[in-house]
Amino acid sequence: MDCEIGILGGMGPEATLDLYRHIINLTPATRDQDHLRVSIYSNPKIPDRTLAIADGGESPLAALVESAKRLEAAGADIIAMPCNAAHHYLAEMRRTVGIPILDMIAETCAALRRRFPEVGAAGLMASDGTTHSGIYHRALEAEGIAVVLPVAEDQAFIQSAIAEVKAGLHTEATRLRLLATGERLVRSGAQAVILGCTELPLIFTPADARPLPYPVLNSTRILAEAAVAWVQAHSRLR
Amino acid sequence: MDCEIGILGGMGPEATLDLYRHIINLTPATRDQDHLRVSIYSNPKIPDRTLAIADGGESPLAALVESAKRLEAAGADIIAMPCNAAHHYLAEMRRTVGIPILDMIAETCAALRRRFPEVGAAGLMASDGTTHSGIYHRALEAEGIAVVLPVAEDQAFIQSAIAEVKAGLHTEATRLRLLATGERLVRSGAQAVILGCTELPLIFTPADARPLPYPVLNSTRILAEAAVAWVQAHSRLR
Repeated sequence: MDCEIGILGGMGPEATLDLYRHIINLTPATRDQDHLRVSIYSNPKIPDRTLAIADGGESPLAALVESAKRLEAAGADIIAMPCNAAHHYLAEMRRTVGIPILDMIAETCAALRRRFPEVGAAGLMASDGTTHSGIYHRALEAEGIAVVLPVAEDQAFIQSAIAEVKAGLHTEATRLRLLATGERLVRSGAQAVILGCTELPLIFTPADARPLPYPVLNSTRILAEAAVAWVQAHSRLR
Repeated sequence: MDCEIGILGGMGPEATLDLYRHIINLTPATRDQDHLRVSIYSNPKIPDRTLAIADGGESPLAALVESAKRLEAAGADIIAMPCNAAHHYLAEMRRTVGIPILDMIAETCAALRRRFPEVGAAGLMASDGTTHSGIYHRALEAEGIAVVLPVAEDQAFIQSAIAEVKAGLHTEATRLRLLATGERLVRSGAQAVILGCTELPLIFTPADARPLPYPVLNSTRILAEAAVAWVQAHSRLR
């Protein structure tokens, strides 16, 4: 029997849906039975990560651990957590959860290094919580890549765009301003842009389906690739 | 705490994704925490329902019960099963699973009766397994509605279209022929068409986003509505 992927989701539900979609699309299949078993616990009641990290709000750690343990008890072999900011709590979660939890931040930075070996500076588009936590700074530093952050006004816009996606209120104007924010990161020295919040790939799409003029790293897609690769590697070993 | 929806999925994964998407869209929310808790067990290894019902293949019953019990043990309060054919086994599942399982077939036929009180005959677009099992015949009869079945050639096409969706091989030609099949059902006396297989709404969309010239019942969407309504009713009672 193949290994089973556990998705610790609900942060937000649309991003969870997006990760599951990527996993399905990444699996070569001609019939249902070719697909992987996936358990999803979409628990949107987990306290807000940005409020906890950047504003002293209630910690999500207990709810994250409880949700991960539910997936473990249900039978999952590996956990993917489609919320970048939640990875601020990854080390603590790993101490009490009995199955491996993928590191979306490290996977994204490793994919950046692997795909674009020449990149020395990357722009970070992420929630206030993720940016404030420094998780991407450390992971990029480990790959020898400098971080380019948005100016304060752009960071405030990114945070509001994330809230718009969660409320289903984003518009074409949101998308266009997000693209302009990416362009400003490039003008500030970024050679690639990381979509370091799982709400951003839901709106950050180029106009007219043309490719963007700079590399974009979609952390949700990269997490899906890492999850499918983990299952393929470990199912063979069983 | 609100009740939790359990989705017994993987039949196929794309249809499971579609149900989850409908549940998210049906939930009024301005932030993550407004959404419902949802547990999904996407178990694509469940034996093929049509092969079991129409061709004497391995029964999926044991895997269906085991999957439902996993959701129950994890904490789900109600189960939604986005596979019409699997409802052939619903009565047997209900005997051993300790939480309620929604009846997608009955919900779809009740929605048809409620929304279109004048309809006396409905066309059924479903897998060979669902059609062969007679589950829609009985549920429509309970609502006083006659069933109009596709001619053999069209039924064979519907079954192949379902297989195409599961393999990701459906094309614009598949969609157009499906629309034509619906039109033939209407010419044969159907006053509405039931999409009685969860793969069909993934391709059965009108051209140019114009509404179809006859009522269409999307069983996946109706199941999502029933699940959200069940949670809203039962969470209030707690």
